[in-house]
Amino acid sequence: VRHPTLDDVRAAARRIEPHVHRTPVVTSRTLDRELGASAFFKCENLQKVGAFKARGALNAVLGLSAEAAARGVVAHSSGNHAAALAWASAIRGIPCTVVMPEDASPIKVAAVTGYGATIVFCPRSEREAACERIVRERGAALVHPFENPAVIAGQATAALELLEQVPGLDVVVTPVGGGGLLAGTSIAVRDVRPDAPVLGAEPRAVDDAFRSLATGVRQPAVVDPRTLADGLLTGLGRINFDILRERGVEVVTVSEEAIVAAARFVLERMKLVVEPSAATVLAALRSRASSLAGKRIGAVFSGGNTDFRWLHG
Amino acid sequence: VRHPTLDDVRAAARRIEPHVHRTPVVTSRTLDRELGASAFFKCENLQKVGAFKARGALNAVLGLSAEAAARGVVAHSSGNHAAALAWASAIRGIPCTVVMPEDASPIKVAAVTGYGATIVFCPRSEREAACERIVRERGAALVHPFENPAVIAGQATAALELLEQVPGLDVVVTPVGGGGLLAGTSIAVRDVRPDAPVLGAEPRAVDDAFRSLATGVRQPAVVDPRTLADGLLTGLGRINFDILRERGVEVVTVSEEAIVAAARFVLERMKLVVEPSAATVLAALRSRASSLAGKRIGAVFSGGNTDFRWLHG
Repeated sequence: VRHPTLDDVRAAARRIEPHVHRTPVVTSRTLDRELGASAFFKCENLQKVGAFKARGALNAVLGLSAEAAARGVVAHSSGNHAAALAWASAIRGIPCTVVMPEDASPIKVAAVTGYGATIVFCPRSEREAACERIVRERGAALVHPFENPAVIAGQATAALELLEQVPGLDVVVTPVGGGGLLAGTSIAVRDVRPDAPVLGAEPRAVDDAFRSLATGVRQPAVVDPRTLADGLLTGLGRINFDILRERGVEVVTVSEEAIVAAARFVLERMKLVVEPSAATVLAALRSRASSLAGKRIGAVFSGGNTDFRWLHG
Repeated sequence: VRHPTLDDVRAAARRIEPHVHRTPVVTSRTLDRELGASAFFKCENLQKVGAFKARGALNAVLGLSAEAAARGVVAHSSGNHAAALAWASAIRGIPCTVVMPEDASPIKVAAVTGYGATIVFCPRSEREAACERIVRERGAALVHPFENPAVIAGQATAALELLEQVPGLDVVVTPVGGGGLLAGTSIAVRDVRPDAPVLGAEPRAVDDAFRSLATGVRQPAVVDPRTLADGLLTGLGRINFDILRERGVEVVTVSEEAIVAAARFVLERMKLVVEPSAATVLAALRSRASSLAGKRIGAVFSGGNTDFRWLHG
């Protein structure tokens, strides 16, 4: 598989620009004082569908040929990618089918059907087979949530904007689950700010990306993971593992307590809703505060879709 | 008392500009579809100290003569004005004393002491006497939270910015408690968009402003009010009553259920934290949707300081 390049990212940015928000970048003087650094957060929680996933899904959908698009798209997802693909398909006016687990949250189901997509419910273990059947029977294009160069290039546009909005960043941090956002970010950063390291923030409970990059061998996804960061449950994808290793990206793991404290800080002090998956970036900055002192840090608040169960835990 | 003019508001804007945020204006396509209108929300929840109160307090503090300032300032408040005055005093480097009730929330107490202000605790019924004593003994300047032309002019700068940020507004809505924000807004709007009506949003449980303007006689504050909108407990001030009556401002009352639903919508869909007092503006827009159809509506999210008790009610 060809890895996306900065040209792909720039093309993605031009393609999706009429439909996505150029999300704002926020700061907190209180946090900067705590960290002894300057932290800039890109608010993809304020993005369409409430997450950066809108970028990758739309880039993939708009990149399909007319014939392929007419046959529709399909993906399995119980989270933000499902809503993003449904939203992107509605923009292009093409059929969209999402395979979801039978226990998917009613809110996510409503979001997907609200954009006019069809849902196929099936047990979690059969979701890949269900997708393949729909690809076979309807000729639908599979839009994988992270193992897809067009999706990765789309996710990378968030970091590209951040680099434009905040000159002179010394380091950039994003959450890592399947790795599409982190890999895309590493591509954008390497070519715009070649000396700036890129960090991934990963819940300790699903630390396969951390172990994969530490050992140089992609590790299997954690089985039955328990973390509040429900957007980061999947294992690191193969393409993304290759990109991250090639770019020398490092992953920082964070505890559940640190994730909740970070989400609460953003809510109470910055007055913004971030989902626990997004709060991992702040937790990672805090755990690395000593090595980040004095630096200009860019970070991506990846999404804001949460039921707030963590708030009164 | 001389009522503030647009010149006073413009002077306040210049004076406080180096220290306050030019807060963003947000929209929601979902809400616009629901209302059949275009609503623009000025995010004073993202303001310094988390509320528009920073504007009025700072304008009052910066407007003091050098001699008066040296003797410090005093106010009684258990809410956002207390933190705002402490913050403003720290900027000018002058002593600040805040009279607070003995049952004030520990968070508010921490905010005030965090800015270096002194707190005098006393029973709620004795707070005015306590303030007067501090004025007498120390020569401190009383900065009333809303019965003060410099404070009113400062609060008006939020609407002035909103009118600059969003051209062609047809109507502007703010919450009303003591009335400083609403009166200031009515001054800014009248001179910039003379034909645009100004509406106040008031919890039904503390509807003294509604009844005051409806009867043309200022009504006493509601005794022992029960509303989640804890920033709007005080009765409408005398100066503000005069300004609002003169400007023909109308007040819309909203139920507790509508306030909670609005605060929840902003949290879940717009990904922003607003306190219940601020959510009253959205509740008011919804209750007036039929008469606002097709209009460009400006509204002020007045603050974002909340303990989220309303979220899981």
